[in-house]
Amino acid sequence: MQFTAQQISFMLNGTVEGDPNVSVNQLAKIEDAGYGSLSFLANPKYEQYLYTTNASVVIVNNDLVLSEEVKATLVRVENAYSAFTILLEKYNTIKLNKTGIEQPSFIHPSAKIGENAYIGAFAYIGPDVKIGDNCKIFPNTYIADGVVIGDNVTLYAGVKIYFDCLIGNRVIIHSGTIIGGDGFGFAPNANGSYTKISQIGNVILEDDVEVGSNTTIDRATLGSTIIRRGVKLDNLIQIAHNVEIGADTVVAAQSGISGSSKIGENCIIGGQVGIVGHISIAKGTQIQAKSGISRSIDIAGKKWAGAPASAYTDHMRSQVVLTRLPDLEKRIIELEKIIAELRTESK
Amino acid sequence: MQFTAQQISFMLNGTVEGDPNVSVNQLAKIEDAGYGSLSFLANPKYEQYLYTTNASVVIVNNDLVLSEEVKATLVRVENAYSAFTILLEKYNTIKLNKTGIEQPSFIHPSAKIGENAYIGAFAYIGPDVKIGDNCKIFPNTYIADGVVIGDNVTLYAGVKIYFDCLIGNRVIIHSGTIIGGDGFGFAPNANGSYTKISQIGNVILEDDVEVGSNTTIDRATLGSTIIRRGVKLDNLIQIAHNVEIGADTVVAAQSGISGSSKIGENCIIGGQVGIVGHISIAKGTQIQAKSGISRSIDIAGKKWAGAPASAYTDHMRSQVVLTRLPDLEKRIIELEKIIAELRTESK
Amino acid sequence: MQFTAQQISFMLNGTVEGDPNVSVNQLAKIEDAGYGSLSFLANPKYEQYLYTTNASVVIVNNDLVLSEEVKATLVRVENAYSAFTILLEKYNTIKLNKTGIEQPSFIHPSAKIGENAYIGAFAYIGPDVKIGDNCKIFPNTYIADGVVIGDNVTLYAGVKIYFDCLIGNRVIIHSGTIIGGDGFGFAPNANGSYTKISQIGNVILEDDVEVGSNTTIDRATLGSTIIRRGVKLDNLIQIAHNVEIGADTVVAAQSGISGSSKIGENCIIGGQVGIVGHISIAKGTQIQAKSGISRSIDIAGKKWAGAPASAYTDHMRSQVVLTRLPDLEKRIIELEKIIAELRTESK
Repeated sequence: MQFTAQQISFMLNGTVEGDPNVSVNQLAKIEDAGYGSLSFLANPKYEQYLYTTNASVVIVNNDLVLSEEVKATLVRVENAYSAFTILLEKYNTIKLNKTGIEQPSFIHPSAKIGENAYIGAFAYIGPDVKIGDNCKIFPNTYIADGVVIGDNVTLYAGVKIYFDCLIGNRVIIHSGTIIGGDGFGFAPNANGSYTKISQIGNVILEDDVEVGSNTTIDRATLGSTIIRRGVKLDNLIQIAHNVEIGADTVVAAQSGISGSSKIGENCIIGGQVGIVGHISIAKGTQIQAKSGISRSIDIAGKKWAGAPASAYTDHMRSQVVLTRLPDLEKRIIELEKIIAELRTESK
Repeated sequence: MQFTAQQISFMLNGTVEGDPNVSVNQLAKIEDAGYGSLSFLANPKYEQYLYTTNASVVIVNNDLVLSEEVKATLVRVENAYSAFTILLEKYNTIKLNKTGIEQPSFIHPSAKIGENAYIGAFAYIGPDVKIGDNCKIFPNTYIADGVVIGDNVTLYAGVKIYFDCLIGNRVIIHSGTIIGGDGFGFAPNANGSYTKISQIGNVILEDDVEVGSNTTIDRATLGSTIIRRGVKLDNLIQIAHNVEIGADTVVAAQSGISGSSKIGENCIIGGQVGIVGHISIAKGTQIQAKSGISRSIDIAGKKWAGAPASAYTDHMRSQVVLTRLPDLEKRIIELEKIIAELRTESK
Repeated sequence: MQFTAQQISFMLNGTVEGDPNVSVNQLAKIEDAGYGSLSFLANPKYEQYLYTTNASVVIVNNDLVLSEEVKATLVRVENAYSAFTILLEKYNTIKLNKTGIEQPSFIHPSAKIGENAYIGAFAYIGPDVKIGDNCKIFPNTYIADGVVIGDNVTLYAGVKIYFDCLIGNRVIIHSGTIIGGDGFGFAPNANGSYTKISQIGNVILEDDVEVGSNTTIDRATLGSTIIRRGVKLDNLIQIAHNVEIGADTVVAAQSGISGSSKIGENCIIGGQVGIVGHISIAKGTQIQAKSGISRSIDIAGKKWAGAPASAYTDHMRSQVVLTRLPDLEKRIIELEKIIAELRTESK
């Protein structure tokens, strides 16, 4: 893939400043860019790099005023950041532009697959599966009986989806993620052993959900574990049975949400957070990384931290005093001594 | 799958109240159930839903006294909850009732597979593997050289078992779980680099163990990492080399147990717990979610919490005082002022 | 695999004490060893086991002076521990000594594979992939377009490597690990939803890196996520986009490093540690298990603990006082009472 400054300018509806015929074949950060690279400058903080970069072409804002001479050819656009984002996306689309059915793959005769699909080798598509149009199912992926998948879905290599789960439109699931494994449900017996409680519900991922790598989302005991529209889940996250996550909530890596808890919409949950079962978290809640949430949060839009969590500012105040704790103890001992003296004196 | 109230009653040894010919084709919670659903009422707390549910059939206890009129057909049984559990299990058995060997799969000529097996497409069964009767090996599963598997075992799609590991009877392993990867063992060199210590032991899962999705259980350096009979492990758990977990212990998601530690039987370990290496935990120990265990626990049957963990009630008391810490600091400052005044006065 | 004491002694350049013709077919710890086992004694602490072990052959140090009679045949060497390590490695090499291309596998015509390769069944090797000599690619592994892999690399079953990633020489990656999934990058929209930021960088693993099972290393947004020479990563670790980890650093299981953070060389990071994004950690830093690092660490070679972390000794001191916190509160209340009395008296 090689493009000239002129071609890039044309794609972005910009104007060229410098040699329009210089060509680029890769994208790079302005501080790292080598000859033949295309880069961008959006944040004025990095303007210095514009005058030293080896990038061949740099996308800049229309209103940028140069304070020194520039080697690179410039492409001026209304918004350099969003213009570059558009290019990233085009680049990615070209990179991942696969279609056709590779062999050997396993497609059950009763499965229905829409138009323009990519099915990688060693992908398994079970009985009664329905897959919409423009889907990419990468190699070594497993889609069990009765799963229904919308349009424009990408399942990267090695995703596993258990039977009867539902996947919306434009969903992206990264490698190694497991959708619909059994919830962790066991009934204790008198002798200390456990009997498995069958988990016959499913998992629903609504439209525009993205799930990272090696995350696990368990099927409901009965009913559905539901991930609402637009939710973004990072890598290695645990979502237990019967959880519901509200629209446009994001969860960072290695967090876990226990059974039947209900997370509101537009929440931001940091990494390595733990949320106990059977509670609800109000919409717009923000939870700091590594926090432990052991009770429902009823007030919307607040920030929480700590394990067990308290309001963010309270937590921070306690944390500060915590570091002074050995000193506080010494001061108490000192006070006790003085008071003992005072008492002796006052007798 | 469609059943009439009469058929369900017959299966459960119950009695029908209402139309015996009404039929159902799915299972649902009483509060969510739609027309054509079978549900149950066990907990009196939910009795209100019985009078409003759209379920076509509801299983109830023999001794339930109705306080209002009911639309649904009732099936009365001795214990509604356990009757429903039996139905869940039957449903699941039908859902997962697969047999036969799908193609393409890889079965080494020296491997031995018992009666009535399901081997999914793209499953790999290596040299000298032995698999018992009635096992289900789902697609994309890998079973390396010399692994021995008992009867009635289910390995869901994408499970990987390294060479020489032993899997007992009725074991269930969910997708993406790795059994027998190398333990994390390296010897430091003088120059700061590390030399790998070969890990040539194995992993043993005894009878009735269930392991969730994307969990990792490392092989022993020498000898065996052992998961005893009836242990239940959730998703994304790390079990390091040479660990031993006692019978009927349960571990919740994202917990980690470091090398050579030995966990007693009948323990309950919450989610995101960390246990350091080379310690032992007495039987019946309960560990709260997110705790960190850095020393052996010798007394059986106690509850622990915190990181580092202390006895549960002590930990809770400290946690409560912790939230009052900024206030305590103020009170110390106040005391110091007063005492300074008192001293001045008393001079 | 069966060896006589004589053969083992010959391999290790040792001397036999006892029957040179006794043979062994497995390796075991001296306290567990049964008849037919080879074991070793390096640590004098375990000398007692030498006189009771059922091992047929035991490797011991040249300078060991026996205090009782020994049943087993001894092989005396300069350093029993390192001699045994050499045997472990030989054993492992024999166990994993696979070559050839199993069928069915998928190798794109444009892929180049070096000499002496093992390619397991259901492995997928995409367009323009380059693989060096003596590599072992186990079953169900996925190597996407343009990936370049060095010599003597082992990818265990089910490893997934996304397009354009680079893997050095002698790298070992365990089952289920995902290299090059998209970084977790989203731009918030005015309506609360998010737009994906394309992640077009890659991941570089330099020479001698080892990665455990089910770990995830995300590709950079632009540029590279870099794991330097000799780094050892355990299981279930999360490495976010644009992270860089310095040479010979080791990270224990279930730790997470957030986006763009830069870890120095020769660091030791415990299990379940969290490190926030956009910070740097000085070389030689040691971080205790379960710690949370929220700020850059500039001083090299120090030990840290806690969440948020402080210097190890400070943290330990605070932890100790923490357990006395309920007592401290009581003492403050006591002081307040006494002072109230003193003030009353002094009026």
